[in-house]
Amino acid sequence: MSDKIRAFILIIGNEVLSGRTHDANLAFLANALNEIGIQVGEARVIPDDEKIIIDTVNYARAAFDYVFTTGGIGPTHDDITASCIAKAFNRPLIRNEEAVAILKTHYPSTDLNEARLRMANTPSEAILIENPISKAPGFQVENVFVLAGVPRIAQAMFENLKPRLKGAAPVISKTISTNLGEGLIAGPLGEIQNKFPDVEIGSYPYFGDGKTGVSLVARALCEDDVDLCLEEIKVMIESLGGKTIFSV
Amino acid sequence: MSDKIRAFILIIGNEVLSGRTHDANLAFLANALNEIGIQVGEARVIPDDEKIIIDTVNYARAAFDYVFTTGGIGPTHDDITASCIAKAFNRPLIRNEEAVAILKTHYPSTDLNEARLRMANTPSEAILIENPISKAPGFQVENVFVLAGVPRIAQAMFENLKPRLKGAAPVISKTISTNLGEGLIAGPLGEIQNKFPDVEIGSYPYFGDGKTGVSLVARALCEDDVDLCLEEIKVMIESLGGKTIFSV
Repeated sequence: MSDKIRAFILIIGNEVLSGRTHDANLAFLANALNEIGIQVGEARVIPDDEKIIIDTVNYARAAFDYVFTTGGIGPTHDDITASCIAKAFNRPLIRNEEAVAILKTHYPSTDLNEARLRMANTPSEAILIENPISKAPGFQVENVFVLAGVPRIAQAMFENLKPRLKGAAPVISKTISTNLGEGLIAGPLGEIQNKFPDVEIGSYPYFGDGKTGVSLVARALCEDDVDLCLEEIKVMIESLGGKTIFSV
Repeated sequence: MSDKIRAFILIIGNEVLSGRTHDANLAFLANALNEIGIQVGEARVIPDDEKIIIDTVNYARAAFDYVFTTGGIGPTHDDITASCIAKAFNRPLIRNEEAVAILKTHYPSTDLNEARLRMANTPSEAILIENPISKAPGFQVENVFVLAGVPRIAQAMFENLKPRLKGAAPVISKTISTNLGEGLIAGPLGEIQNKFPDVEIGSYPYFGDGKTGVSLVARALCEDDVDLCLEEIKVMIESLGGKTIFSV
C-alpha cells in the first residue's frame, strides 16, 4: 500500500482520561477519514497540559500528513488548545477578526463577553472551520485541524473541512465471518496471509449473544486482491467444516 | 495532587484505527483505574506494528507507574503483542508451561493445535493473568499488564489483576450542572479556579435532547476542597440567574 495519506488524531481532555467522558470522536474521525482514503496511523488521548499538547502536536505534524485535534477550544480556563497550537507553530495568538464577526452574528452584543471572545482567538494566519451548531469556529494551521470536543460539533466541523483534504484511493475492506474458532483456522489463515502480501487480513473473535466465532477482515487498495483472498479464506473454512457469511 | 500513581493505556489494533471497531477498553480502564486511585496520564491507539509497539511500551513503562495494553494476544498471524513485549524487555519469548496447562484444561487435546498453543507464549518470567471467559491468559511483566482486546475478556482480566495494583487515595469528583451558557460563567469560573489551586475544575458543555447547558466537574484529593469549590460555583451561577443541579 504505497502512496498512503496518513493522519494522526489527538483527543485533548482530562475528562476522557478520567473516564468521565466516553470519547466518540476517534471512532467517527477514523471512519470518516478511511472513507476518503486517509489512513489513521496513530491516535493519542492526552490531558489539558500545555507542554504535552505542544510536544505532541509538533511530533504529529512532522510525522503525519494530517493532524486532527478535538477538545479545548471553548471559553473557559481549561480551554488551552488554541494557545498551545500557536506556541507549537511559534506564531502569535491573535484575536481573529473573522471569528469575532461570526460570534457577533450569534450573540447579542451584551452577551459577547471577554470569555466568549476568547473563542475567537487563533494562531495568526489560521483558516477558520465553520461550526454550524454553536458558531464558535475551529481552525486550521498548515496540516493541523483543530476541532471542538463535543461530538456533534466536531462532526459538523469535519464535514465543513473535508473539501480541504486530499485522500488517496480508499482502502477496500470486506469481511467474512464464521462460526469456527479462531484457533482452528489460524494456521491456514497465516498461510493465506503469506500468499497475499498486499492484503491485510485481520482476525477478530466475537463472544456474546450466545454466539461465538470470528470475523476476518481483508483490506487492500485493489478490490480484486480482496475478493481473491476472501474466496481462499471461504474455501479454507468450508474445508474445515465451517459456515461462512460475507458482510461489508 | 502529589504522590500520584499514573497509568498509561495502550490500545493495539489496526481495527480501531480503521474505524471498524469502536474501542471500549479505554473508557472501562480509565474508570476502573480512577476508582482505585490510579490516574490515567495518557492513552495511545497504535497499529499492529512491531517497532511501534516496542517503542511505545518502552517509553510508557519508563514514564508511568503502570502500563495496560489491550489487543493482539490471540492465535492468528496478526497477534504479535506477546513477542513485542518480550523484545521490549529484551527477554526470550517462551512457551509458558503454566499457560499450556490452562489451555489443556479448556481444549480437547485434538483441538490444541500449534496456533492455539501460540496463546501460551509469553516473555520469560511473566506472571499470568487469568481469563475466565476464553481461558487463554493475559500476562504481566514488571509494570506492564497485557490484556485481550475483546472488551468482556479485558474487563474480566482486569478484575483478576486488580489486587496486584497499588493505588493512591482516589480522586474525589463531583459535578454541578447548569442551564447557563459556558461563556456566561467562564470569567467568574476562572476566578474560582484560581482560588482553589488544588481542585481541577473541568467545564463540559452539552447540547441535544432540546437542552443545552454545562456540567462543571470539580476533582481533588480532598473532599472538603471539592465541596467548598462547588459551593462557590453554585453561588456564582445563582447570582447570574442560573439554575443548578448536583450529580455524582
